[in-house]
Amino acid sequence: MKDINVGLIGYKFMGKAHSNAFAMLPMFFDTQDRIVRKVICGRDQNMVSKAAVKFGFSESMTSWEELVKRDDIHVIDITAPSNFHKEPAIEAVENKKHVFCEKPLALNYKDAFMMYNAAKKAEVKNQIGFNYRFVPAIVLARKMIEQNKLGRIYHFRGAFLQDWIMDPDFPKVWRLDKSVAGSGALGDLGAHVIDLARYLVADINSVCAMAETFIKKRPAVQEMTGLSASKKDINAKMEKVDVDDAAIFMIKFTNGALGTIETTRFAGGHKNDMFFEINGEKGSIRFYFERMNELLYYNAEDEEGYMGFRLIQASEGIHPYMQSWWPAGHVIGYENTFVHEFYEFFQSISLGHNAKPDFYDGMKCCQVLDAVELSIKENCWVSVDSIK
Amino acid sequence: MKDINVGLIGYKFMGKAHSNAFAMLPMFFDTQDRIVRKVICGRDQNMVSKAAVKFGFSESMTSWEELVKRDDIHVIDITAPSNFHKEPAIEAVENKKHVFCEKPLALNYKDAFMMYNAAKKAEVKNQIGFNYRFVPAIVLARKMIEQNKLGRIYHFRGAFLQDWIMDPDFPKVWRLDKSVAGSGALGDLGAHVIDLARYLVADINSVCAMAETFIKKRPAVQEMTGLSASKKDINAKMEKVDVDDAAIFMIKFTNGALGTIETTRFAGGHKNDMFFEINGEKGSIRFYFERMNELLYYNAEDEEGYMGFRLIQASEGIHPYMQSWWPAGHVIGYENTFVHEFYEFFQSISLGHNAKPDFYDGMKCCQVLDAVELSIKENCWVSVDSIK
Amino acid sequence: MKDINVGLIGYKFMGKAHSNAFAMLPMFFDTQDRIVRKVICGRDQNMVSKAAVKFGFSESMTSWEELVKRDDIHVIDITAPSNFHKEPAIEAVENKKHVFCEKPLALNYKDAFMMYNAAKKAEVKNQIGFNYRFVPAIVLARKMIEQNKLGRIYHFRGAFLQDWIMDPDFPKVWRLDKSVAGSGALGDLGAHVIDLARYLVADINSVCAMAETFIKKRPAVQEMTGLSASKKDINAKMEKVDVDDAAIFMIKFTNGALGTIETTRFAGGHKNDMFFEINGEKGSIRFYFERMNELLYYNAEDEEGYMGFRLIQASEGIHPYMQSWWPAGHVIGYENTFVHEFYEFFQSISLGHNAKPDFYDGMKCCQVLDAVELSIKENCWVSVDSIK
Amino acid sequence: MKDINVGLIGYKFMGKAHSNAFAMLPMFFDTQDRIVRKVICGRDQNMVSKAAVKFGFSESMTSWEELVKRDDIHVIDITAPSNFHKEPAIEAVENKKHVFCEKPLALNYKDAFMMYNAAKKAEVKNQIGFNYRFVPAIVLARKMIEQNKLGRIYHFRGAFLQDWIMDPDFPKVWRLDKSVAGSGALGDLGAHVIDLARYLVADINSVCAMAETFIKKRPAVQEMTGLSASKKDINAKMEKVDVDDAAIFMIKFTNGALGTIETTRFAGGHKNDMFFEINGEKGSIRFYFERMNELLYYNAEDEEGYMGFRLIQASEGIHPYMQSWWPAGHVIGYENTFVHEFYEFFQSISLGHNAKPDFYDGMKCCQVLDAVELSIKENCWVSVDSIK
Repeated sequence: MKDINVGLIGYKFMGKAHSNAFAMLPMFFDTQDRIVRKVICGRDQNMVSKAAVKFGFSESMTSWEELVKRDDIHVIDITAPSNFHKEPAIEAVENKKHVFCEKPLALNYKDAFMMYNAAKKAEVKNQIGFNYRFVPAIVLARKMIEQNKLGRIYHFRGAFLQDWIMDPDFPKVWRLDKSVAGSGALGDLGAHVIDLARYLVADINSVCAMAETFIKKRPAVQEMTGLSASKKDINAKMEKVDVDDAAIFMIKFTNGALGTIETTRFAGGHKNDMFFEINGEKGSIRFYFERMNELLYYNAEDEEGYMGFRLIQASEGIHPYMQSWWPAGHVIGYENTFVHEFYEFFQSISLGHNAKPDFYDGMKCCQVLDAVELSIKENCWVSVDSIK
Repeated sequence: MKDINVGLIGYKFMGKAHSNAFAMLPMFFDTQDRIVRKVICGRDQNMVSKAAVKFGFSESMTSWEELVKRDDIHVIDITAPSNFHKEPAIEAVENKKHVFCEKPLALNYKDAFMMYNAAKKAEVKNQIGFNYRFVPAIVLARKMIEQNKLGRIYHFRGAFLQDWIMDPDFPKVWRLDKSVAGSGALGDLGAHVIDLARYLVADINSVCAMAETFIKKRPAVQEMTGLSASKKDINAKMEKVDVDDAAIFMIKFTNGALGTIETTRFAGGHKNDMFFEINGEKGSIRFYFERMNELLYYNAEDEEGYMGFRLIQASEGIHPYMQSWWPAGHVIGYENTFVHEFYEFFQSISLGHNAKPDFYDGMKCCQVLDAVELSIKENCWVSVDSIK
Repeated sequence: MKDINVGLIGYKFMGKAHSNAFAMLPMFFDTQDRIVRKVICGRDQNMVSKAAVKFGFSESMTSWEELVKRDDIHVIDITAPSNFHKEPAIEAVENKKHVFCEKPLALNYKDAFMMYNAAKKAEVKNQIGFNYRFVPAIVLARKMIEQNKLGRIYHFRGAFLQDWIMDPDFPKVWRLDKSVAGSGALGDLGAHVIDLARYLVADINSVCAMAETFIKKRPAVQEMTGLSASKKDINAKMEKVDVDDAAIFMIKFTNGALGTIETTRFAGGHKNDMFFEINGEKGSIRFYFERMNELLYYNAEDEEGYMGFRLIQASEGIHPYMQSWWPAGHVIGYENTFVHEFYEFFQSISLGHNAKPDFYDGMKCCQVLDAVELSIKENCWVSVDSIK
Repeated sequence: MKDINVGLIGYKFMGKAHSNAFAMLPMFFDTQDRIVRKVICGRDQNMVSKAAVKFGFSESMTSWEELVKRDDIHVIDITAPSNFHKEPAIEAVENKKHVFCEKPLALNYKDAFMMYNAAKKAEVKNQIGFNYRFVPAIVLARKMIEQNKLGRIYHFRGAFLQDWIMDPDFPKVWRLDKSVAGSGALGDLGAHVIDLARYLVADINSVCAMAETFIKKRPAVQEMTGLSASKKDINAKMEKVDVDDAAIFMIKFTNGALGTIETTRFAGGHKNDMFFEINGEKGSIRFYFERMNELLYYNAEDEEGYMGFRLIQASEGIHPYMQSWWPAGHVIGYENTFVHEFYEFFQSISLGHNAKPDFYDGMKCCQVLDAVELSIKENCWVSVDSIK
């Protein structure tokens, strides 16, 4: 058993989620090697050193440029905002570090392509933080599709609905700033659903989209963390919101299935409602993130008269990853998906195989996102392949 | 109290639903006048005379042309297939009959426009069978929107999902024949959802659509009724299906809201799942037809910490039409919506006001349907106004 | 096809439900004979003659004594309050009328036993209005149990929850008057659940109960119908409530299963929530009346990893009685259960077999109710057989 | 910030849950002092030393007698089987250690009383592992009741349903052995529900119960962990099961409310279904553990016509403990409840106040359990106070 030393960039929402996963992982899973929380890196020395204590890292640093060059670091984990993925990722892989990067991989397909190529050339392990792929119920869904339990797929119906910025007084946080976040609901939420559509159905052929910014100006913001923001400041100046509040698109998949994805931060009552349903020739499945331990399954081959969507509690020992947790019905939460994704990442490093989703998947997702943005701009169908 | 004599054209699925409504109506509602089941009309003399007995009509006829001219008939009720609405409706209104017509009003906007104009000119009462408008929970939804309980509307998310033709051996019944039905899922199911979108949100500005026929050939059919069909005939010759199995479209409403409507007969496990959700500035509402007595309501102005979608059982005396039925919680069904719609229709005749939805609404729905079909054909956004 | 002439006693809540069923029945079901709404009978001449018109009866009368003797009447249908079942039922059967009687059969086991014996001796058809037995989903449940789909039964968990008298100002209507209603929630609601427990599980061996009257005094009432009551009268004098607001009991079934039944009119938010779940060796089923078209079914023999309660929409042609109604997913309501029960009743008359549930079932239910009341009084387990 | 050194007894299901909580706690909550995983103690030296590594403890030991005397240990945490709580707890408190003990506190009221007295006398902090009290939705429920949002309480309806031993071949694990577990479903599951009934409603006056062992003999077992067991051994000898498979009881609360609690391991399809509903004068609340992030709330004071159970996602920053976790809608799981309970425990030690639930609550729960057992034995109502 050898040490895998991690250098983590970022210590906010995702930094916390990853650190926690590093701590929980060895208690529940048998990894080949020892995961060591070595260095945490952030811009503010005071804050990052506090984070080191809180999250159990031995050291803290402010220079990611130095971090990615350190010989005693084996893994770089990037949880910084979206506009700050490309440079550290490329530097890291060029320094032969394995890299885990939060989603979206980059602000656009071109950058993502560069990152993918750099990682490929460097021959290092690379993974992207599409953590919803690691919800046991979703892994089960994938398994069912692989086993042809749904047959030919006709429909994918996906949505990611939130409501946290409906208040017009809510300030223009970084997620509402195009230069930092790239896009609004589309990139933040849509990226997850696009990835799941690719994971579960097929690659995406073409898209046709529309989008809207319902609240066009918001108060400027000073400081924020996670999805929260500081209280309304009466004197704050109003700034233009340059990202979408909602983006909706239709999809034609390469296998002939039809799809829709709706992403919005203006669906009152929906907190983190990542939803999808897939209808196939032999059955249907449905999932809601807010009830992430459940998968609904309609088996068109059930006995006539006794057919119906059944609610599978994907929390039994037989279900993906669940043997490692609690007895059936003792539900798990959001944070456990990070444990699963890092289990796969670290095992891929120890054992030398490639884990998924990787930079390739991150890049493909960016390509679809770019196609959606182009479609919004030009009011027409856009072929994903046309994005270079 | 005077008699209103009804001449009913058609005696299958909708003929039965209407006849039953005529029988139930006086037991539960106080109508101004007496509804008399006078004549039932159909092509097959033997079958229509049996239907007269079964459904309580005094007479049966095979000639609608004669029926619409009879002096002792005050109302013509058209429940024939979609390609057989225009002629009887126009003849009837020209003979000064009040006309109730099943949906869709016609096979296209042009025909619908003629029907609307004829009825307007004749100054008779006219109504269209968008019976979902008479589900108490949906009337409640409308009332809430009128009272501004949702505020500015951001999203309409509608669907009508069925699965009754997923079996490739299911024959090509009239609903799958373009010359009779006009279109497939789109006209049959989409018409209802489009009407509700107009009823609840606003008029539709433009649409962008896609559609698919998943099973492109089916066995020919001899006879069928309702949605069922005779068993598979091995010797049946295969015929091309020329209507859509699924049609999906995005909507821009005149009030700035964004919408989506998905209609399909290939959503396994969904029997008659007419669904919509509306998200507004001050709240959201959600409805599923299969639980038609329920309306989900999120009030964004509820006390913080105690917010959430509440399940309103729209079956209390205070709810629309429910005072006439049973005590709270004693749920009603599909057929009751017909009682409500005919209550409004006959009252409009007796009292001289106009009831809704009328031929105007039927025509507007056809206009949207035509826009959707054009969008499918041309792969682009289509303005509803461009349909003449 | 001959006429079966019905004499209906009572014209309020149940009178309306039955009359409506008589009107709907021939439109949807093929009965052997013709059901004729001949005479309606009530105490108030003015009101009963209006009811005759409204409900489609040819005549009205005020004397049930005369009605039960008329040669042209074949069926007596009793929908009067509970304390007014015994006399007309016994007179009717002695006059060789077939009798349909609303539940509970009588105010106590002794009276019920007399009624049962009288009907048996007269050799007439007799049925009791446990209409919940005619919900398609419940018939399906019974069929599943008969087919041994659940195996050995371990648990029955039943409840009937309402909230219509929670307001202390709600007056003391007849259902709260022991001399008329016999008991409170227990007899009104419990009777239905007890009957279903017997129908679905087994006979009841012994019971142990508790009960409470939460609001001990209420304003007197002048007039009421159904479950509603006239508005609060400030000057109304307060009267003691002598029936239970809630009654809860444990059950030991003759087949070794354990059961619980809870009935209350003080469960805020529950309108007509008749619920049961049955757990057996090979599966479980669950039912809620407010979603009466649905049956939840857990099949313990499903494929491992894909098990879960499935939501059967008991609205397909294959489901009990549903072939006669609408296409799948077009849900039915409370009133349709009456159509089903009268279909069985009239067919039993025409064809000469015995239909269920009959006076025997009504009597057995009264025996259990008496045992529950004794248990409440004596704070101990009571054997049902000990009730004579 | 000083160190609080923990000595943990037991390293299986609960040992893992507690260790994980110790690791997660400082990442998400600001505790006054530092929680140190010092010593883990178990009977098997080999296994316990492995557990020390896995769960992050500095040392392992096999002698709890020595552990409880060590000067460098401040807290003893007992997660051993139920028959092994009393001795270490009493020794520990007599050595002035603060003690956290898993539920049930003891095998009977008498032992629990001794433990309570010892802790009281020693003036140490003591807490019991009723972790369901720390589900945010349940804390919210308690808060609502404290704020009188429900008014006078009429009903408590609780259940804890599982199905993990329905297979007759499942062996007689320790939880089915009276000498180790004390009782079956009753003590294991009922303890949690009784505690919640006391927490949310009131103390319990009297109970009346029944119980059953459906499968009376099972194969002997060699080894097991958590709730799972080794595969069926054909040669295993059959042993009598001396605990209840199901226990059901009625409750009269000191405040006049009526209650029921049903616990069973024979409810097919229910994995860990801890359920309760409370009906009060001003509202109702409902909770299911398998959807532990949700609380259903019916507010009888909502606007008429818009009333209904609302689904509160108790995952917003405003909800108990949730500020420390993720943004709204990012659900938490079973394990997080342990983080909350230990946060309260360690804070009580650091700050000198008393945390709840403590040994007093554990003792009161045992008293009710003893009353239930006596009621089962004697087939009658038993006053809780009569248990000494």
